[in-house]
Amino acid sequence: MNFFTRLILTTSYVTRCEGVSLTLRRKHSLGNQQIRVSKQKRVALGNPEINSLTLSQKRDILALDTDNNTLKFPTIWLRDNCQCPACFQRHSQSRTIDWGKFDFGVKPLSAKLVESELTIEWSDNHRSNFTLDWLIERSFTEEKRKLFRNKIYRFERTTWGANEFGKYLKKFDYKSVLNEDSTLLNWLESLTKYGVAIVTNVPAKNNSNKILTERVAFTRRTHYGEEFTVIAKDGTTNVAYLSSTLPLHTDLPYYHYAPGANLLHCLVQSQGKGGESQLADGFHVGNYLKLHEPESYKILTKTLVDWSDVGHENGDHFHSLHQAPVLCEDEFGDLVRVNFSQPQRDSHFNAPLEQVILWYEAVGLFTKLLYSPENNVTFKLAEGDILTFDNLRLVHGRSAYADTTGRERLLIGCYLDWDEIYSRIRVLRKQLKRSKEMNIEQSTRNLHQLCLSF
Amino acid sequence: MNFFTRLILTTSYVTRCEGVSLTLRRKHSLGNQQIRVSKQKRVALGNPEINSLTLSQKRDILALDTDNNTLKFPTIWLRDNCQCPACFQRHSQSRTIDWGKFDFGVKPLSAKLVESELTIEWSDNHRSNFTLDWLIERSFTEEKRKLFRNKIYRFERTTWGANEFGKYLKKFDYKSVLNEDSTLLNWLESLTKYGVAIVTNVPAKNNSNKILTERVAFTRRTHYGEEFTVIAKDGTTNVAYLSSTLPLHTDLPYYHYAPGANLLHCLVQSQGKGGESQLADGFHVGNYLKLHEPESYKILTKTLVDWSDVGHENGDHFHSLHQAPVLCEDEFGDLVRVNFSQPQRDSHFNAPLEQVILWYEAVGLFTKLLYSPENNVTFKLAEGDILTFDNLRLVHGRSAYADTTGRERLLIGCYLDWDEIYSRIRVLRKQLKRSKEMNIEQSTRNLHQLCLSF
Repeated sequence: MNFFTRLILTTSYVTRCEGVSLTLRRKHSLGNQQIRVSKQKRVALGNPEINSLTLSQKRDILALDTDNNTLKFPTIWLRDNCQCPACFQRHSQSRTIDWGKFDFGVKPLSAKLVESELTIEWSDNHRSNFTLDWLIERSFTEEKRKLFRNKIYRFERTTWGANEFGKYLKKFDYKSVLNEDSTLLNWLESLTKYGVAIVTNVPAKNNSNKILTERVAFTRRTHYGEEFTVIAKDGTTNVAYLSSTLPLHTDLPYYHYAPGANLLHCLVQSQGKGGESQLADGFHVGNYLKLHEPESYKILTKTLVDWSDVGHENGDHFHSLHQAPVLCEDEFGDLVRVNFSQPQRDSHFNAPLEQVILWYEAVGLFTKLLYSPENNVTFKLAEGDILTFDNLRLVHGRSAYADTTGRERLLIGCYLDWDEIYSRIRVLRKQLKRSKEMNIEQSTRNLHQLCLSF
Repeated sequence: MNFFTRLILTTSYVTRCEGVSLTLRRKHSLGNQQIRVSKQKRVALGNPEINSLTLSQKRDILALDTDNNTLKFPTIWLRDNCQCPACFQRHSQSRTIDWGKFDFGVKPLSAKLVESELTIEWSDNHRSNFTLDWLIERSFTEEKRKLFRNKIYRFERTTWGANEFGKYLKKFDYKSVLNEDSTLLNWLESLTKYGVAIVTNVPAKNNSNKILTERVAFTRRTHYGEEFTVIAKDGTTNVAYLSSTLPLHTDLPYYHYAPGANLLHCLVQSQGKGGESQLADGFHVGNYLKLHEPESYKILTKTLVDWSDVGHENGDHFHSLHQAPVLCEDEFGDLVRVNFSQPQRDSHFNAPLEQVILWYEAVGLFTKLLYSPENNVTFKLAEGDILTFDNLRLVHGRSAYADTTGRERLLIGCYLDWDEIYSRIRVLRKQLKRSKEMNIEQSTRNLHQLCLSF
């Protein structure tokens, strides 16, 4: 049975200009209130054609009926999102209704649709107007929700094993990223989709990496500073600064707010063997476990592990701690973060004993898969490369190396947060779309000019 | 029934020096392996007295039996946390075992306890030693887990309503915070516990606030920069920069990584009425709902809301989005973050329609409670105050004001992240404890010297 038990009040309508007006007057009725329009006079709005406006019995839902569908809107949401200058400030794109004084019991008294504009009179003596385009863009269907989530809020991801890596690893010229918005967008989209991309031809300067982050937004600072130098050091408190093998890990899992993306600028590479970068896609392996080893997956998503870092940098001491699983899911059960680091896992393990035993079994399997040739890729960065990768998704490592006299392997790293990357992608997409539309307009004008001149 | 079904192998023991050695040799036995020591020869370790070592049948759990308790440890965890120089680097406080080569099936071959040191021989030809203090500190009991969580990982919180606010609001002298570690710690502990504290006597300089954050760690940057100036501005894209009422809100809910603590330095306060700060404890109100309005609480913890910010700052455009509930819980069902901002909630609401209607009812109730005199406090900052508060817990607002000629209300704000605050608290507690112990030692030495001189 339809959500609405309908009570048709009237079929009258008024034609204005080339459109149709649908008026709905308040009735103290137990049934729903609906106005139908004749088929010939439907309001055409791109895809849907609106047949009628319907208000639910409680006056809490307003429905726009089309032949195939009913677009429903909560009336309280409509009032809350009134677009008039008193309720919404256009230049700050902000709602200005003060909730301290808002009537949460507000109801529509009447609603009418004139051409493509919906007008509602409210019980708090207010009137709101909405264009149908605006409403349709915000419709409460599952399809719209998914679209928003996958295209605007987050972007599509493609996970990979070793076989696909070569196909997915894209390279972007540093100067081009700095100077062309389209290359900047392509790099960030590649980084988002595959979790990895290389920026090439980077000047051998200490601040080249920082300049790149500032092209996006700004460098994410941590207790290691804004930039960190990866060079063999004596007496370090971080194992990354040794020339021995650096096993697969994610950076800074002991931060509740772990850095989103890692940018490693290779200034000096070691000669001969060693110093290779290793990567594996933690989401790819995690999803494999979810499918084939669901018990292990469950343990890795449910067991809180104590990630920690105790040390000092430039004389400043820190003691960071974060309790989180190896595999972190969002509300939809999708993986959103991998925490993985042998050196930076505390010897305190605050989980029940039996669970800890199962956790070691599961993490053993996860580790084996991360290191297996099916999932693990090894390559050597060239001098002038910036390896950029998703630190919440990929694990990375490095094989041991030996410095030769006068030639010390040197990487300068820094971080970018996903909040800033996503924001930049949204802005760039909008700007590039607008500029494309303007180019088309300009081309049309040019063509028109050309035609006239013949 | 006890988790261990015991098979006592031997009761022999060897006395060495003033201690007791407990040896356990590998037996291919289906039962558990246990060694008992006579009551007279127990190993005394502060509180517990160890009666015996027990290895479970699968050799996956090692138990230390006392009269009152059994301390159990997963053997794989023991191997993973071997403290020898090959497995653990002391100065970086890091595990150096390479998991790429680790045997996850490793088992103990034998274990012995000499005085307060446990020695284990492993199936991977390795030997580990652990002191009993180290083990007891890491025992897998629920009590230890809670202690670690509430004393080391996180710290105790006291939520408040308007009646308690005056009692809990502490003030700290700026110079003292900068110069004395104990005052710095007291301020941060107060901020953590009550979610609010005021730093007073702050020099009227633009960078006073930044200096304060650098005393803790560093300023958290956002797309509004490292610092933001709250002054009435024309043509702003942020409603905080208007002189009208600023309704209760949390800052930057549209960041996945929302800034942890807010620091608002009042340089110029408006004369006459208006410009008052408003605060309410979102956790206090949230917990009230949990107890008295569980359905509303559930809706507010489960409904994903679209928080957004579209605008520009210093010519740089941004479009931030974050989907999260108003009330966010951790894995234990404790509140960890409040998201609340009318202007910065998107008109897109990506939740099912029926849930949206219930959400408005619930958020209406939450809002009413936040604004109610039982929960809401109003006070006027003095010039030279820095209001510091937990931005993930408290909501804040400001009453409308009017600038007088030549006197424009001016606040400079910046943020600190909880990752850095917690880290600083842990470091300070350790340092102050050590310095206290050293002072006691010094006093004892002085006293001894004094006695000798008589």
